[in-house]
Amino acid sequence: MIENKTSFRVRYAETDQMGIVNNANYPTYYEIGRTELFRELGLSYKIIESAGIILPLADLFVKYHRPALYDDMLTIKTCIKEWPASRIRFDYSIYNEDEKLVNEGYTTLAYLDAKSRRPMRIPPMVVELLQPYF
Amino acid sequence: MIENKTSFRVRYAETDQMGIVNNANYPTYYEIGRTELFRELGLSYKIIESAGIILPLADLFVKYHRPALYDDMLTIKTCIKEWPASRIRFDYSIYNEDEKLVNEGYTTLAYLDAKSRRPMRIPPMVVELLQPYF
Amino acid sequence: MIENKTSFRVRYAETDQMGIVNNANYPTYYEIGRTELFRELGLSYKIIESAGIILPLADLFVKYHRPALYDDMLTIKTCIKEWPASRIRFDYSIYNEDEKLVNEGYTTLAYLDAKSRRPMRIPPMVVELLQPYF
Amino acid sequence: MIENKTSFRVRYAETDQMGIVNNANYPTYYEIGRTELFRELGLSYKIIESAGIILPLADLFVKYHRPALYDDMLTIKTCIKEWPASRIRFDYSIYNEDEKLVNEGYTTLAYLDAKSRRPMRIPPMVVELLQPYF
Repeated sequence: MIENKTSFRVRYAETDQMGIVNNANYPTYYEIGRTELFRELGLSYKIIESAGIILPLADLFVKYHRPALYDDMLTIKTCIKEWPASRIRFDYSIYNEDEKLVNEGYTTLAYLDAKSRRPMRIPPMVVELLQPYF
Repeated sequence: MIENKTSFRVRYAETDQMGIVNNANYPTYYEIGRTELFRELGLSYKIIESAGIILPLADLFVKYHRPALYDDMLTIKTCIKEWPASRIRFDYSIYNEDEKLVNEGYTTLAYLDAKSRRPMRIPPMVVELLQPYF
Repeated sequence: MIENKTSFRVRYAETDQMGIVNNANYPTYYEIGRTELFRELGLSYKIIESAGIILPLADLFVKYHRPALYDDMLTIKTCIKEWPASRIRFDYSIYNEDEKLVNEGYTTLAYLDAKSRRPMRIPPMVVELLQPYF
Repeated sequence: MIENKTSFRVRYAETDQMGIVNNANYPTYYEIGRTELFRELGLSYKIIESAGIILPLADLFVKYHRPALYDDMLTIKTCIKEWPASRIRFDYSIYNEDEKLVNEGYTTLAYLDAKSRRPMRIPPMVVELLQPYF
């Protein structure tokens, strides 16, 4: 298993008139989590893309536990629990400064060839990166 | 069962550098769907809020089938399949101009008192609105 | 001079905790305006891009007059007032349902070759499109 | 004069299909700048709002110099150059990791009473905070 913890602050534009973070921001917060997990392992997602591989989402799930508020410093824990052979699943949980669970969820991403847009097996550069953890 | 169909056009800002609609826009598209379903029934979500009721999300699921592209005219079908006693679940499916399925998913929303932020049973104004369909 | 009028509805996600449309949404609303102006003339911006031309912003100005609210049906008037020789300037004004001015502004866009990312003169397909109006 | 420097990373969702940061994200980046300037001075914007004061935008200007890219670590310099008697103007400049100027601009914000939504003079808590610098 691989885990990363990253913190970021809620922006004013991310709130809505309920006075809480709008539900539609969490997929973007999840993207921060997986980007930083890759970076911690030594591979920026930018490099993956420049190798001609894209990772679009296959599915997304979010379970909202409590609202996050403007200016909250949130911490996202991102992990890969299973060997990502044909798709890669990330699990996320977001905590506020009181260490209360705001939200948890997952995304599954496919490996696609950027040109043909066809699915591919796990790219060698990702295998090399993740193998030590499984 | 209640169903609504609404169309809207993809904005440039909603694309990302993969050249497709960024995954994080779909929760907002789903919001368009449920807003228009309420409007078709004769109740704007604005009125629900001004009655002191808010409907934050409890969960969200999205299954991405094929990418949507800039300037696509998308059609979202939104439906309520079950009597929404303590929570209200909306199911969505989004189609492109070729009537291909782009994406499907659901959201579950809680009924909260806007002031106390405590859960409540289905509000009478929503009962009155939906009862003819169940 | 060329003018277009287009209407669209404010989304919930576009509000912020002040209870109004967040200031950062107006550049995207302006994009709706210029997209629809091009479409009315018979040229989608999509076609311009597939001809290898991109139009990134050179500058943007917004003057906020009164807030727009959730679910407002806004109307944006977009116009090109001067022959767009080396850059193209769009002027915008946004009105609410009471025909009150919400907001006005402008954007200047450059013509760039999509591959080289170098500035170019007004593309022939844009000349052809706009010439009847000047 | 008061100046603040803050860094943040470009998110994938902030790019568009031109492969650059979409123009509409800069107003939100500017909001990060002014939030952090206030925080450095010891006053979170959250506290200002809880004192019943809101600061909506009166105007916004952005001059785009060069594109920012996905995953760029950007630095925003925010400053208040003049005593903000009836409105407060922030000037911004954004630099990439090569210290090249990406973008510069300004916003003017009004002081409003959150309840009446009427303009007010500079609030005492802001006077106290800024006076040492002018």
